[in-house]
Amino acid sequence: VKTHLLLIECADEPGLIHKITGILLHGGFNIIRNAEFVDETSARFFMRTEFTGASDPDPLATFLRSSLPSGANVRLVPPGERSLVILVTKEHHCLAELLIRHTYKELGAEIRAVIGNHNTLEPLAQKFGLPFVHVSHVDKSREQHEAELATAIDQYAPDYIVLAKYMRILSANFVQRYARRMINIHHSFLPAFIGAEPYQQAFNRGVKIIGATAHFVTEELDHGPIICQDVFPVDHTHSARQMAQTGRDIEKLVLARGLRLVLEDRVFLNGNRTVIFD
Amino acid sequence: VKTHLLLIECADEPGLIHKITGILLHGGFNIIRNAEFVDETSARFFMRTEFTGASDPDPLATFLRSSLPSGANVRLVPPGERSLVILVTKEHHCLAELLIRHTYKELGAEIRAVIGNHNTLEPLAQKFGLPFVHVSHVDKSREQHEAELATAIDQYAPDYIVLAKYMRILSANFVQRYARRMINIHHSFLPAFIGAEPYQQAFNRGVKIIGATAHFVTEELDHGPIICQDVFPVDHTHSARQMAQTGRDIEKLVLARGLRLVLEDRVFLNGNRTVIFD
Amino acid sequence: VKTHLLLIECADEPGLIHKITGILLHGGFNIIRNAEFVDETSARFFMRTEFTGASDPDPLATFLRSSLPSGANVRLVPPGERSLVILVTKEHHCLAELLIRHTYKELGAEIRAVIGNHNTLEPLAQKFGLPFVHVSHVDKSREQHEAELATAIDQYAPDYIVLAKYMRILSANFVQRYARRMINIHHSFLPAFIGAEPYQQAFNRGVKIIGATAHFVTEELDHGPIICQDVFPVDHTHSARQMAQTGRDIEKLVLARGLRLVLEDRVFLNGNRTVIFD
Amino acid sequence: VKTHLLLIECADEPGLIHKITGILLHGGFNIIRNAEFVDETSARFFMRTEFTGASDPDPLATFLRSSLPSGANVRLVPPGERSLVILVTKEHHCLAELLIRHTYKELGAEIRAVIGNHNTLEPLAQKFGLPFVHVSHVDKSREQHEAELATAIDQYAPDYIVLAKYMRILSANFVQRYARRMINIHHSFLPAFIGAEPYQQAFNRGVKIIGATAHFVTEELDHGPIICQDVFPVDHTHSARQMAQTGRDIEKLVLARGLRLVLEDRVFLNGNRTVIFD
Repeated sequence: VKTHLLLIECADEPGLIHKITGILLHGGFNIIRNAEFVDETSARFFMRTEFTGASDPDPLATFLRSSLPSGANVRLVPPGERSLVILVTKEHHCLAELLIRHTYKELGAEIRAVIGNHNTLEPLAQKFGLPFVHVSHVDKSREQHEAELATAIDQYAPDYIVLAKYMRILSANFVQRYARRMINIHHSFLPAFIGAEPYQQAFNRGVKIIGATAHFVTEELDHGPIICQDVFPVDHTHSARQMAQTGRDIEKLVLARGLRLVLEDRVFLNGNRTVIFD
Repeated sequence: VKTHLLLIECADEPGLIHKITGILLHGGFNIIRNAEFVDETSARFFMRTEFTGASDPDPLATFLRSSLPSGANVRLVPPGERSLVILVTKEHHCLAELLIRHTYKELGAEIRAVIGNHNTLEPLAQKFGLPFVHVSHVDKSREQHEAELATAIDQYAPDYIVLAKYMRILSANFVQRYARRMINIHHSFLPAFIGAEPYQQAFNRGVKIIGATAHFVTEELDHGPIICQDVFPVDHTHSARQMAQTGRDIEKLVLARGLRLVLEDRVFLNGNRTVIFD
Repeated sequence: VKTHLLLIECADEPGLIHKITGILLHGGFNIIRNAEFVDETSARFFMRTEFTGASDPDPLATFLRSSLPSGANVRLVPPGERSLVILVTKEHHCLAELLIRHTYKELGAEIRAVIGNHNTLEPLAQKFGLPFVHVSHVDKSREQHEAELATAIDQYAPDYIVLAKYMRILSANFVQRYARRMINIHHSFLPAFIGAEPYQQAFNRGVKIIGATAHFVTEELDHGPIICQDVFPVDHTHSARQMAQTGRDIEKLVLARGLRLVLEDRVFLNGNRTVIFD
Repeated sequence: VKTHLLLIECADEPGLIHKITGILLHGGFNIIRNAEFVDETSARFFMRTEFTGASDPDPLATFLRSSLPSGANVRLVPPGERSLVILVTKEHHCLAELLIRHTYKELGAEIRAVIGNHNTLEPLAQKFGLPFVHVSHVDKSREQHEAELATAIDQYAPDYIVLAKYMRILSANFVQRYARRMINIHHSFLPAFIGAEPYQQAFNRGVKIIGATAHFVTEELDHGPIICQDVFPVDHTHSARQMAQTGRDIEKLVLARGLRLVLEDRVFLNGNRTVIFD
């Protein structure tokens, strides 16, 4: 008996849960875990269902699509682990966190490759036996660089692309190409200090708490739907350098937590917000 | 069109959600918010459903009881605010927090009376126009004192009894009399420093974080099902007195948060644990 | 034997601690608690010293001023409680928190009056036996309203003015008049959602954490030196209204904590940052 | 001009700061960072001073010892990085965290070797080019195993021994041998669930927050002076397995933070408590 995962998103209307669970039951499936949410603002219905059963669930999904309100998004999540490609620049902490979890089977995903616009982190990827692709941006137009990046990514056909402190701005085209598949870790709370050296800015502002945000990447830089956030207290005795170390610690855990939610298909996009079934 | 709230708890079996939502639909009701959880350890099913409809929902509950697995606990929550009696000793902070919220319609409950084994807090209750009943324990056996306490409580027929720093140990009899209806705020994390002067103990132990726990009262003192907990950092420069002030701040918020969850019927007891639909 | 409190701020130079402690010792005083900090960026020296002694400490302060680097700010804090005036608009939660602490001698200050541009909170102030002054802004120019406000404040000669959800923008003139004496609670993290309905904005943005900031008021609105901040997690199931309630809970505690630090003279201004000896 | 670090602990008496800073000044040294604390309960004085100067500071320390109250503990911290040996069993997360920080010069210490009573983590240590010593406990008495462990440790002459999820109970003899030099990460809050499978216990108890504690090892198992603690919220949907993952995330960060404080000589032992100059 296999476990299947079904994700449904559609306009809300009366009787949806009954209808969906009925279709599952009559198909001979047994729901083992179920969560649903109606966003009253947008009148959208979201449902995440884990169910078991011996038969092929594909016809079920087809039937659901035809039975639910028009435009319903019904996804039957393929079994098995998701795949990732990780994009980096020079900072190691997020990559290292993911590599360690990967090595000890705590990530819940297969890392297929690490791609860097610098080659600084090649030795780290190699330590863990992973391919590292260096796609330098030097002396290239943004279009050219992103075309090479896309080629490098696509050869690994990953489910998701993780920006693990990848420090280049991405074009709208590139973002659209990987829509809903790119996760970024933002070096601060959102709303946040904008621009270069955020920890220096946080230090200058004398903040008493610093944080980090994991979010999906959309065309509006750093404004994509938030997956998770966390914070840690600091005080006037902390230098900008110490704040940056604290920031790295928060960033890597927030990224790992946000990624777990995405990899377990617990995150729905709801406009610029998220619905999370944790 | 009224909103109703249905709480169901029973042994888990396939098809429960479909069956329950079907009964609701066929009764002409519309589910507007729904949450369910299956505890795999105990194989218990928990469901909380808000629904609307013009007809009387009582027959629905009766029908549900007969349709669900034997022993099912089906509660149709009566509309309107819940009522409370608050038990206190001498400390003001939790009582004051509840009185302020009550005054500004943030509590979601009617406080019917404050009962104290000391009369220290009588002026505070009176400031907010609430009856204060002094049930002294002096020169009385536990049985006698608790009998008087029960009389004082029962004349107000409250839905819940809040122990807002009520510092007397309660007998098993008394606890059973108000089973599932008594909420306590524990002056520490659980597991915790046991016995008198917990903040002095926390100070002596040199802890770096102190916390508080809201829980249902069961016969095992301070071991009832946990509703919520919170913490705040402290350090070596904090005296036991400062830790106690920090403790008071946490206690009152944790109690208020836990109470909100209870008053909105979001907390199910699951053995010595809780299932919380927040 | 009395306890005195000395606050020193000056340009840093070698030997300052030795010189200051020497002057105290030779004056027959005994240091019981001492903390100092050098901000390396600004090369400013900050020191907070509690000391005991039978003699008058005033000559000591005079002597210190003449012995320390030119421009040194030497303050001998007068014994006894500080005094406050609290400014409010319509929201009760911060005022209520301060009133409760005041009533139970936990505030460490005397509240002399509550002043509101609306009279909504007059009954709350009266419950606790405090004068409430209604200084309406209706049909008045900002200058005129602030002149009346200043008159109302000044008749109570408070050490500090607490903006406990006072929702009017203050002119640069007014801010300067009470420079370093006005503490505000900001309804969000800083940097923050700017403008009206911050919790609606936070909800729209789908944040997973909301916070509050206590800060000194300077001419740049909401950009004064931060005293303390705190946060609480939220999720997609929380409505903007629930986020606002969570916000109120954080605001009142952050204001009370920040105020304690100010009232115990633990906060030094250091440009737009603070040095806090907690 | 070199930076030196001086740590002083002695019985409190009037004039200590003045005396110590005077001795430094007259020796031609310049204090650049200073912190002191008097524990009023034990009447002990603690001071941490960073100072610069061209001359040899050793005579200074000798002179200080003779000038301070009898029994004064005056330590002149040798320049340069501290050294570590890390003891492990089978769990990787704390070791991996320290190895990554070590590799990227964020640890502030030299890891000389990893010693395991199992060889599970040998590949991880080797990935980072570090010696791994397998000292199996199988078929050995505690005395014999600890003797071999001590031999393995002592050949590396480390300043500190980090118990990074080392799961064997240590004898009083062994603890005394490395008194004040052994740091442990405790898999829970203190006070805590005692015994095996703490996360299963936490799950069974239905806690809403789990935490971890870094502490010095003393003869009373898990009762040594606390260096730092942190927590993370959980709820009824988290399995014991997920709580354990959350626990690992907290443990590794708390250990890394506690270790930084120790390595920068910011932690003084004060009976069973700590004084921390952060």
